[in-house]
Amino acid sequence: MSNGLHEECGVFGIYNSNDLSLAQEVYLALYALQHRGQMSCGIAVNNGGVIDHYKDCGIVPEVFDKQTLANLSENGKGDIAVGHVRYSPNKLIHQVNSQPLVMRYARGTIALANNGCLVNTAEIRRELEHDGCVFQTSGDAELIAYLIARSRLAAGSVEKAVSVMMNKVRGAYSIVLMSPRKLLAVRDPNGFRPLCIGKLEDSYIFTSESCALDTLGAKFVRDVEPGEIVWTEGGELHSIRDHCGGPTSLCVFEHVYFARPDSVIDGASVHESRLRAGAFLARQSPVEADVVVGVPDSGLDAAIGYSRESGITYSMGFIKNRYIGRTFIQDTQAQRVKSVQIKLNPLKSAVSGKRVVLVDDSIVRGTTIARIVGLLRNAGAVEVHVRISSPPFLNPCYFGTDIDSKDKLIACRMTRDEICKTLGADSLDYLSLENLGQIAPDSTCDMCMGCFTGNYPIPVPEEPQEDKFARKLPSMTKEKKA
Amino acid sequence: MSNGLHEECGVFGIYNSNDLSLAQEVYLALYALQHRGQMSCGIAVNNGGVIDHYKDCGIVPEVFDKQTLANLSENGKGDIAVGHVRYSPNKLIHQVNSQPLVMRYARGTIALANNGCLVNTAEIRRELEHDGCVFQTSGDAELIAYLIARSRLAAGSVEKAVSVMMNKVRGAYSIVLMSPRKLLAVRDPNGFRPLCIGKLEDSYIFTSESCALDTLGAKFVRDVEPGEIVWTEGGELHSIRDHCGGPTSLCVFEHVYFARPDSVIDGASVHESRLRAGAFLARQSPVEADVVVGVPDSGLDAAIGYSRESGITYSMGFIKNRYIGRTFIQDTQAQRVKSVQIKLNPLKSAVSGKRVVLVDDSIVRGTTIARIVGLLRNAGAVEVHVRISSPPFLNPCYFGTDIDSKDKLIACRMTRDEICKTLGADSLDYLSLENLGQIAPDSTCDMCMGCFTGNYPIPVPEEPQEDKFARKLPSMTKEKKA
Amino acid sequence: MSNGLHEECGVFGIYNSNDLSLAQEVYLALYALQHRGQMSCGIAVNNGGVIDHYKDCGIVPEVFDKQTLANLSENGKGDIAVGHVRYSPNKLIHQVNSQPLVMRYARGTIALANNGCLVNTAEIRRELEHDGCVFQTSGDAELIAYLIARSRLAAGSVEKAVSVMMNKVRGAYSIVLMSPRKLLAVRDPNGFRPLCIGKLEDSYIFTSESCALDTLGAKFVRDVEPGEIVWTEGGELHSIRDHCGGPTSLCVFEHVYFARPDSVIDGASVHESRLRAGAFLARQSPVEADVVVGVPDSGLDAAIGYSRESGITYSMGFIKNRYIGRTFIQDTQAQRVKSVQIKLNPLKSAVSGKRVVLVDDSIVRGTTIARIVGLLRNAGAVEVHVRISSPPFLNPCYFGTDIDSKDKLIACRMTRDEICKTLGADSLDYLSLENLGQIAPDSTCDMCMGCFTGNYPIPVPEEPQEDKFARKLPSMTKEKKA
Amino acid sequence: MSNGLHEECGVFGIYNSNDLSLAQEVYLALYALQHRGQMSCGIAVNNGGVIDHYKDCGIVPEVFDKQTLANLSENGKGDIAVGHVRYSPNKLIHQVNSQPLVMRYARGTIALANNGCLVNTAEIRRELEHDGCVFQTSGDAELIAYLIARSRLAAGSVEKAVSVMMNKVRGAYSIVLMSPRKLLAVRDPNGFRPLCIGKLEDSYIFTSESCALDTLGAKFVRDVEPGEIVWTEGGELHSIRDHCGGPTSLCVFEHVYFARPDSVIDGASVHESRLRAGAFLARQSPVEADVVVGVPDSGLDAAIGYSRESGITYSMGFIKNRYIGRTFIQDTQAQRVKSVQIKLNPLKSAVSGKRVVLVDDSIVRGTTIARIVGLLRNAGAVEVHVRISSPPFLNPCYFGTDIDSKDKLIACRMTRDEICKTLGADSLDYLSLENLGQIAPDSTCDMCMGCFTGNYPIPVPEEPQEDKFARKLPSMTKEKKA
Repeated sequence: MSNGLHEECGVFGIYNSNDLSLAQEVYLALYALQHRGQMSCGIAVNNGGVIDHYKDCGIVPEVFDKQTLANLSENGKGDIAVGHVRYSPNKLIHQVNSQPLVMRYARGTIALANNGCLVNTAEIRRELEHDGCVFQTSGDAELIAYLIARSRLAAGSVEKAVSVMMNKVRGAYSIVLMSPRKLLAVRDPNGFRPLCIGKLEDSYIFTSESCALDTLGAKFVRDVEPGEIVWTEGGELHSIRDHCGGPTSLCVFEHVYFARPDSVIDGASVHESRLRAGAFLARQSPVEADVVVGVPDSGLDAAIGYSRESGITYSMGFIKNRYIGRTFIQDTQAQRVKSVQIKLNPLKSAVSGKRVVLVDDSIVRGTTIARIVGLLRNAGAVEVHVRISSPPFLNPCYFGTDIDSKDKLIACRMTRDEICKTLGADSLDYLSLENLGQIAPDSTCDMCMGCFTGNYPIPVPEEPQEDKFARKLPSMTKEKKA
Repeated sequence: MSNGLHEECGVFGIYNSNDLSLAQEVYLALYALQHRGQMSCGIAVNNGGVIDHYKDCGIVPEVFDKQTLANLSENGKGDIAVGHVRYSPNKLIHQVNSQPLVMRYARGTIALANNGCLVNTAEIRRELEHDGCVFQTSGDAELIAYLIARSRLAAGSVEKAVSVMMNKVRGAYSIVLMSPRKLLAVRDPNGFRPLCIGKLEDSYIFTSESCALDTLGAKFVRDVEPGEIVWTEGGELHSIRDHCGGPTSLCVFEHVYFARPDSVIDGASVHESRLRAGAFLARQSPVEADVVVGVPDSGLDAAIGYSRESGITYSMGFIKNRYIGRTFIQDTQAQRVKSVQIKLNPLKSAVSGKRVVLVDDSIVRGTTIARIVGLLRNAGAVEVHVRISSPPFLNPCYFGTDIDSKDKLIACRMTRDEICKTLGADSLDYLSLENLGQIAPDSTCDMCMGCFTGNYPIPVPEEPQEDKFARKLPSMTKEKKA
Repeated sequence: MSNGLHEECGVFGIYNSNDLSLAQEVYLALYALQHRGQMSCGIAVNNGGVIDHYKDCGIVPEVFDKQTLANLSENGKGDIAVGHVRYSPNKLIHQVNSQPLVMRYARGTIALANNGCLVNTAEIRRELEHDGCVFQTSGDAELIAYLIARSRLAAGSVEKAVSVMMNKVRGAYSIVLMSPRKLLAVRDPNGFRPLCIGKLEDSYIFTSESCALDTLGAKFVRDVEPGEIVWTEGGELHSIRDHCGGPTSLCVFEHVYFARPDSVIDGASVHESRLRAGAFLARQSPVEADVVVGVPDSGLDAAIGYSRESGITYSMGFIKNRYIGRTFIQDTQAQRVKSVQIKLNPLKSAVSGKRVVLVDDSIVRGTTIARIVGLLRNAGAVEVHVRISSPPFLNPCYFGTDIDSKDKLIACRMTRDEICKTLGADSLDYLSLENLGQIAPDSTCDMCMGCFTGNYPIPVPEEPQEDKFARKLPSMTKEKKA
Repeated sequence: MSNGLHEECGVFGIYNSNDLSLAQEVYLALYALQHRGQMSCGIAVNNGGVIDHYKDCGIVPEVFDKQTLANLSENGKGDIAVGHVRYSPNKLIHQVNSQPLVMRYARGTIALANNGCLVNTAEIRRELEHDGCVFQTSGDAELIAYLIARSRLAAGSVEKAVSVMMNKVRGAYSIVLMSPRKLLAVRDPNGFRPLCIGKLEDSYIFTSESCALDTLGAKFVRDVEPGEIVWTEGGELHSIRDHCGGPTSLCVFEHVYFARPDSVIDGASVHESRLRAGAFLARQSPVEADVVVGVPDSGLDAAIGYSRESGITYSMGFIKNRYIGRTFIQDTQAQRVKSVQIKLNPLKSAVSGKRVVLVDDSIVRGTTIARIVGLLRNAGAVEVHVRISSPPFLNPCYFGTDIDSKDKLIACRMTRDEICKTLGADSLDYLSLENLGQIAPDSTCDMCMGCFTGNYPIPVPEEPQEDKFARKLPSMTKEKKA
């Protein structure tokens, strides 16, 4: 039950109050945010209202080379700049949907980068089309830009136009927006996606995750509040909080899997959340074993947490091949089977003859984890106990997380015992919903756990929004060459 | 005195009434139109209203490879398809401006390819921005698409919406437009740029030049009339002629230089026009000489015409190196001087000891032709008489031809005698304005000769439209890698 | 009856007596020699005995970019340098066979570039292998280098070692060889392939064709004599003529097709030879016609010669698409048929309703010329008279020219009348052997016409040397990516 | 004190007794061996004596694409195949030195892949040159191939020729050699580099590390003995042990750093060796601390070993950015400083306020580890105790390990206390030589520890072999484009 266009992304913006070379700073930051999206990326740099930008399908090292970065600095070091990395489960790579979206309107040129997924795009689009609007992308960012543009003159300022826009849209959005003279950050009232404020020397930064601040040597200032509009023009930070104060619901999967462990979101360390999830699992589902191993890299933190809580020795269980990338060629079935092994080779001396606790963050279809259990058995493990640091996936996400369609989710088709048997494991347990709710006790936000519970913090479309639109839109079927 | 964004381009559209593989047909056609633009190109294919497209900076062989072409056929052979090649004198390659422009509006998705240059964009843009419109490109195509979209619902059909759009815009445009179910071609009332109709089996084609029809083995049907809207849906051709009947003004430079010699425009063969220009020159400006040579490839036709009329022997005068392309590396001044020689080597045995008539199509700054005269002298020519098959450039073009700024046009700075001396020639003559007007007697259109005369067929902006907009727009500074 | 490994190539060497940047000079020269081979190319630069080189499959602009050229100058501007372009009919692109071949032996490092084809490689190779030699390529250059290396110590100088080598090898070779301190040029005693001497300022150049001298602004000094060894070390030219004085036999196909028309070989202008061939055809085989056209670019010179001699008007008959290259994609039969048309579009206005004389340089299988005749008919030509500026191909070449296997040569299977019918022509004639012998009266060399007559100037292997070796050798199946 | 050409490499060979697609198998194996060399790689496939091969500079995914792999299978699935990955500290990437080296000699074509470094190349090369040999590379593999070729006829078989070659060369070599009908593996008498035997179904494999066997799902059979020549022709394994039985000396750095932890070398698990090194360090140099962290990825195993022995909690200390690769652009000093941080971000919650033991495998110049200590301090670590799982580098390696020149080795210039201060650490200790000797007690080979002790198991050149040759040889200055 796939529902529309996921936009798991990373956003970044910086306002230059020093003498920084902004293109370079954004380039570095995008490396730090790359885990949030590997489909496309882009940078836009504003020099006195003139915006140069470059974006394409691919990861940062594929899209940006020396020349491209140099071009972005041709008009100067930059007064303001924004960057974006984007993920989409759609295999057709939509070049047109890459961001930042750069657009000209009555008050100059703006650049917009968004992370999130609206739930009422159909009605907004219908209304805009009726007024003669044309759309060149299928993304929410274009809709949001339109709504801002249409109220800009009446509103009197771009931040007020943003506020008007927020009255119209519903869903998840964490936006960084660069106007000719201002840099803004906007987070939806529920705070579905993270967004924080940092400072590099005197220059303000808005970005998805605090790890991007560390990378630049910048200081963390605070998170953007759910519902808040913040902006900077010159050295000061301004804020509109008209949409703040309602119930909040950060996506719990940011803590479970999506965010980088070295990030701190709404006051809670992601690394700590995962250690805690592993510790909860150990208490919730103890087992006699000789060694705890995690699936690299997603299960390592929780495995350490499990080990510490249980006292069972932690060990590296697998060597991950760092060179396998997207260009890895596997032609036949025989090779597909081997490809798990070439990516992950079990450390025989660590698991042979041992009772192994195997920890991972989640199970979607179950095929990969089943193969990994098989690898451990072949390497001589005498028992394999699978522990998953999140509950079973049972429901779609409407706010940007790419969860497989229901008929492919193994938990929708089998009982836990059946799954355990399918995996070839000796035992299987998932983190309970109750414990999941406790993994980030320091978080200033409540959590959305809709994909596990089916209870969503805001109304969602009755029918899963089938992506009829995608079938009609300017698809950009670019496959990267070499 | 550069004036705005030139859009010398080639357009192509085909409506499949047979079982053709449209992506392949458009690909072939773009090769035939490549001389009209080498900056970017693109193809859009419509299967049942779903449009797949691909476009990028570069020439056809750089942009399209097997995989890209195959992707464009993934959803079927195509019901309708359009293609575009684009030129821009701007060295920053604007990827965002590449066409076809694919946009979704209230009645589905359209794809639009345009050749031309509007003169009232500023006022249109102002009006649209005031209404909350946003622009993602700096091209006329986006404006035109907007105007069509905004009147589409009221107009009741896309062709009527096009007619409404034509009331608003002034200038040069030859458009091929693909709606979910129709293929349209539109030519501005003056017919500044060529546009013709062909038929491949039962499938209608609209394209800039007839040479694209020959390439596909298609038959020439007729030219699109200045001011005409033609469209096909299924096997029949329909036409709206509300904007026809006014004075016409095809760009004369299409005959002098721009179009391919094997094309026939508005009833006149380009090859014949150039032979005739050469013949006029021979009559207008006879000289005692031993041999007539043309500058490859632009001066060859006129040189043959000169030879036939004068009775002076025609000879190949130069060998042109076919391998020098955009990636040719020339670092130092020394090499720049040699680069003329590496591109063009005079055939000593043809010119040594001879009095040479050297024919080319036009002189802009005069540097290249001066070097060529020098090459002939070095190769032993005893006299060099330069004959140019068009008058001196003295004025800007507002309709899409890229003419250098006035301060760089040699004819704006020197008398003919001074130029002759600068070139190192023994004599120099240009085709007279009067003769220029006679080079295409079969043409059903009158000619715009504004760049030579300063008299334009429609009002032009008083101030040359400085490209203020370009300074503000989403520039896409992509340099092709490898 | 393909016979072994053809090595139609272009060679270039320069000894720096000035302050030239040799990598750049060779790079330019290779552009001028590119027509002699488009399979691979390379440059080697010698600074004080240290040789840097770079070579790869592809044409010059594909192989050399700014960085690669810069790397070749890292150790200095160069004391000596050599370059090479290579052709091979073998579709597997043998990267290992690309030249210059750079090798270290007892007296330092040498670089060798060769054009030609030996006829006694089998016995030489057998002997060397018996002595424990290993081969890393399948080319003659490696054999030649081995032979020079093995006699170098005994001979006392590299030029004398070259002389010893010449006693062992039989066949065609034009070699440029760079030792640690000298630049040498060697031409086989028959002079099968061209080789000449030029001077740029005080710097001596040895190269295949004089057009490379023109390109650099260098002066032609003289041809290397058949059998001569010339070398320079410092400002003087030295010569060994021990192998000179026998019968000579320059490949006549250099004049007919292979060399660039602006080159002068052994005193004879190639352009003049082709004009003369056309003139002979006109006398030998007159016809009533309205227009003479040549197949671009190979038939243009002879067509002009035919026109001048016959008095029939010369005209451009076709527009050749300059953008079609190796990356042109043609998938289906339908497209293959069109691909002739997309490359060559007939100028209807030039041939419609006319009796056309169509001139080309040679016929191999006859398929292309048949299609071109068809194009002319479709364009309205009422008669098409084919005139070929060389005799029919009937025999293999053992000296480097790539002639198709006998069973594919149309002249081996059909009479002239049958061929004429197959082509769809109204008449067909070839240049007579007698006239062929007269096309270059100024040539100081006699001509090898073995491919037409079957009479070879030196003994050739009884059995066509089937390329058994190629089946055993390090094939390098690299297809250029993008 | 760099000493010549390091050739740290990985080798692989397979003899097909089943129906395997060898190109694919080698391709997979090279991914598993990639950590042994990222400069160049290659594959050679033998079908009935015909050898196709492809090699180039770059890592496996850069060098091999679908087409290239397909080409290697054009002549069949392969009877035998070899592969190679290569490292060289030389920044000029020597394309000519890439392997496998494919050569033809009196008994057909062979392909050779080598890992190691000879110490008597100068005298061998001199002797061969004197006999008229020429060299096209600067690598040992070519010398070895020559020596085999020169004794092949007299020896009567390739394996006996290999034995003769072993009498001539001294130093480190682990060779996989493919003759027209046999696959051989040869390891030098000291066993400096690893080499093992595996079996995939009935097909024998010879390769550098057992992890390559795991990747293919092959079984480990045994190690090749130091001094042993093994070969297979058909289903059986043959062996010559004439050179076996002397003292052995596997490079200890294979266990410390170079090999993959999941490999087992001469009976000893690399992972276990590193755990043991960490444990020794904990005993040898205990410290009161709160957490043990390893530098990713090289220090992780030893850190776990330290933690287990000391009882101090193990923690992930850093997040390593997986996307930073060779194309990462860092222009200014400012960015160079940041580049450590962008690669490694400390996990604040793991180290803040803690006393940290930081474990890494070795220190060369000390700059990187100093920056990492700084990162920990910035992240709030109150103490940082550096523990290194090998002794200080003090001497050059003559057998293939790339150790920096003496003047750059920090341990050659400073005392341990000075280094500790330079690093900004609270304490510093290295693994003792005595303990180093105990890290792999199961190893059937003794260890070479010359880089730490200066005592080498065989005589080494008195003067460090300055690479005079490299200055004279065919350098191939190819920088990978994009």
